[in-house]
Amino acid sequence: ALLLLLQGGMASPAPSEGLEQLFRHLELQQDALVQTLKEWVAIESDSVQPSPRFREELFRMIVDSVDTGSQQLPDGQSLPIPPIILAELGNDLKKPTVCFYGHLDVQPAARGDGWLTDPYTLTEVDGKLYGRGATDNKGPVLAWINAVSAFQALEQDLPVNIKFILEGMEEAGSVALEELVQKEKDRFFAGVDYILISDNLWVSWRKPAVTYGTRGNSYFTVEVKCRDQDFHSGTFGGILNEPMADLVALLGSLVDSSGHILIPGIYDHVASLTEEEKNIYKSIDLDLEEYRNSSQVKKFLFDTKEEILMHLWRYPSLSIHGIEGAFDEPGAKTVIPGRVTGKFSIRLVPHMSASVVEKQVTSHHLEDVFSKRNSSNHMAVSMVLGLPPWIANISDNQYLAAKRAIRTVFGTDPDMIRDGSTIPIARIFQEIIGKSVMMLPIGAVDDGEHSQNEKINRWNYIEGSKLFAAFFLELAKLH
Amino acid sequence: ALLLLLQGGMASPAPSEGLEQLFRHLELQQDALVQTLKEWVAIESDSVQPSPRFREELFRMIVDSVDTGSQQLPDGQSLPIPPIILAELGNDLKKPTVCFYGHLDVQPAARGDGWLTDPYTLTEVDGKLYGRGATDNKGPVLAWINAVSAFQALEQDLPVNIKFILEGMEEAGSVALEELVQKEKDRFFAGVDYILISDNLWVSWRKPAVTYGTRGNSYFTVEVKCRDQDFHSGTFGGILNEPMADLVALLGSLVDSSGHILIPGIYDHVASLTEEEKNIYKSIDLDLEEYRNSSQVKKFLFDTKEEILMHLWRYPSLSIHGIEGAFDEPGAKTVIPGRVTGKFSIRLVPHMSASVVEKQVTSHHLEDVFSKRNSSNHMAVSMVLGLPPWIANISDNQYLAAKRAIRTVFGTDPDMIRDGSTIPIARIFQEIIGKSVMMLPIGAVDDGEHSQNEKINRWNYIEGSKLFAAFFLELAKLH
Repeated sequence: ALLLLLQGGMASPAPSEGLEQLFRHLELQQDALVQTLKEWVAIESDSVQPSPRFREELFRMIVDSVDTGSQQLPDGQSLPIPPIILAELGNDLKKPTVCFYGHLDVQPAARGDGWLTDPYTLTEVDGKLYGRGATDNKGPVLAWINAVSAFQALEQDLPVNIKFILEGMEEAGSVALEELVQKEKDRFFAGVDYILISDNLWVSWRKPAVTYGTRGNSYFTVEVKCRDQDFHSGTFGGILNEPMADLVALLGSLVDSSGHILIPGIYDHVASLTEEEKNIYKSIDLDLEEYRNSSQVKKFLFDTKEEILMHLWRYPSLSIHGIEGAFDEPGAKTVIPGRVTGKFSIRLVPHMSASVVEKQVTSHHLEDVFSKRNSSNHMAVSMVLGLPPWIANISDNQYLAAKRAIRTVFGTDPDMIRDGSTIPIARIFQEIIGKSVMMLPIGAVDDGEHSQNEKINRWNYIEGSKLFAAFFLELAKLH
Repeated sequence: ALLLLLQGGMASPAPSEGLEQLFRHLELQQDALVQTLKEWVAIESDSVQPSPRFREELFRMIVDSVDTGSQQLPDGQSLPIPPIILAELGNDLKKPTVCFYGHLDVQPAARGDGWLTDPYTLTEVDGKLYGRGATDNKGPVLAWINAVSAFQALEQDLPVNIKFILEGMEEAGSVALEELVQKEKDRFFAGVDYILISDNLWVSWRKPAVTYGTRGNSYFTVEVKCRDQDFHSGTFGGILNEPMADLVALLGSLVDSSGHILIPGIYDHVASLTEEEKNIYKSIDLDLEEYRNSSQVKKFLFDTKEEILMHLWRYPSLSIHGIEGAFDEPGAKTVIPGRVTGKFSIRLVPHMSASVVEKQVTSHHLEDVFSKRNSSNHMAVSMVLGLPPWIANISDNQYLAAKRAIRTVFGTDPDMIRDGSTIPIARIFQEIIGKSVMMLPIGAVDDGEHSQNEKINRWNYIEGSKLFAAFFLELAKLH
């Protein structure tokens, strides 16, 4: 359906006062646009859990394709990688060409995790559209498509050439994407002037933002093994180096209760803070009280807006995600797990490098801590993802066009923000294509991407569609 | 089928040289006896996972009953408790009455946990009968029934009166059993002289054992909660007291890498070691090399037989079982769990008390550790099981009868052992009924109760059936 839309006939020249018409069209069509989002959310396109069922759902989501091969899992299983969609609309040399990147896969979600509604049935409550992928990233991808199709429906001339790159493995580390961008650098990407991504959130409920940097991520697994089988804690408790005790000590050595990472050298390459950068944090409109309430957190580690923003955007953080192989069900099982795997990740900031962090974590820190325990178990550490941070030049044309479009649609200047999470493709595009990359989020701060009860507001979805339409016109003017 | 068997007609007087006949009968019938075990194992009588499906399987396993009410789960769910079977055979005042306790429920098991065969299909490989419950406790329960039915099949006089008590909630803490024993103290249990349990293992592959003590168990959950929903580690990593960091610190404060429990006061009430007790450990036939190989453990915490046995039997131990609510699947999910529950247990020995341990763990130790972290999260500790240890008088008649029967069947003296795991019913019977309680295991040390690939050897199952038959005759002589 997507490709048919993009290949649809080019319309006659648009009236110069067409923007109002476009906005009205998007508002009138909004129930149809929500219905399309509902159909997209209904596909369980989970790329994280390596099961054939979810991989089939990803293929349902992605209708046309560049072949991307298969993914080799640690356990020997091989799963096909969903193809990547490359599409284009318009080839007018007088117009700027903007390429939109989005992803159609989602994080895992199950009703039992604490969802109040079925995660794969988009459900509207008080103007909020709940569903896995609603805001990350199916809603924003559709908003972009809505903007393009509004021009077409009204037979207005699209002021920019459009390219699309849509993938299905973002939540699993964008396997195969970088290779594809390399390969298509001088073909599909040859005429691209600007690359736009809409895969993050505002820092406010109502005030839009433009994003010029993201943290990277290095994801680690640490396995401690005594034997493959579990033990009975009555029969063996007291005479073993228990793998869970070793693992808990290893995980407990990583970060202190103030959030400070305890791995020696980890802060060595963090960029120093300039006065200019400090001023950016001051001007951002973040209502701490509202932020605390919307995130349902009693107390953060820091008390000021500046400290909080800096610890989300320009300092590394370490999170422990969980343990595989231990007892994780309800009930009281008296087991000594024989082999357990802890999972944690460190968000990377300029100018940290994943390969340096890998050495600091593995060869130095964890091996030190483990050897001091004098345990007879076997430890194996692995960095399964290593994604560098990204930072952009904010005086580029597309950043100016976005600011103007935001003023038109929302009547305000945007917050100039960075994002604490990792969208590796931003850095990949900037490095490989060498063009301006911008992130233009449309979701509100409380959308709950990756968590239970993810949603996008109907308002954000529709105004976001308008924003992209206005952005096309501004970009054409500035180019 | 069980009750029909037990209610079957009493046979004519047995010949005094009937033991050989009984043994031959049991050997000739062994394929039929294994087939019956296969049918019992095929029922997924999992009492640990609180799901209606497994509870139905438990009802299938237990054919007749004393009503035991229902079980209230922490989440508000209510599940029926499987009824407890009380059965009797013979009421001759000149004969001793021996009551056999067993359980028909099993630990959770799934192929995906690392089983090489389907856990609920008894599968014989090289004389080993693999299946969940094969040794814990379906095999031993059937061995007892095999012994009784051999007397009946050969029309020999059963030299003892038999009582049975079979329950279906042992692995879930024998919910409702203690109340039942209290209630039936002066009815069903009125004429009982001896109570026998066969719910543990030898310490050797081939040498039998008699067990005169078990450790108790106190099972704890510690929940750390920031909010009910999870967080995205990019969006919130760096500004939160993350519940997993708190929980890992709490769990890491419990035990050091030498197995020493770090909770202040925990060793205060442990019985001091006498010279007499030391000698028992010396005489036990434990081949450490064989033990290490059979358990597939590279190195234990201790190097001598005596130290190992004492740390399994007469010292407390602490095991961390796992974490509920964190990321426990394969893959690399970048989640900050919002609410996590750690699970650990402490095996109790004479003269520790569960209520004292509960205070030491909760009000003192964990609250101290947590308050020092100055975390804004909420911690809740709960002792969900508190089962005292048990120790018996080994000069009682039934211990002598067991030794003689073991000499007859196996040609050796037994190891006089204790068990590191918890069979609370031993202490309950001893306290409430006030009669001699003995544990007479028939499974080998490598049976893997509670772990993947649980099995009972065909040899142990059949010789164990003979042992019970010989025991009846010896007990009648001594009484």
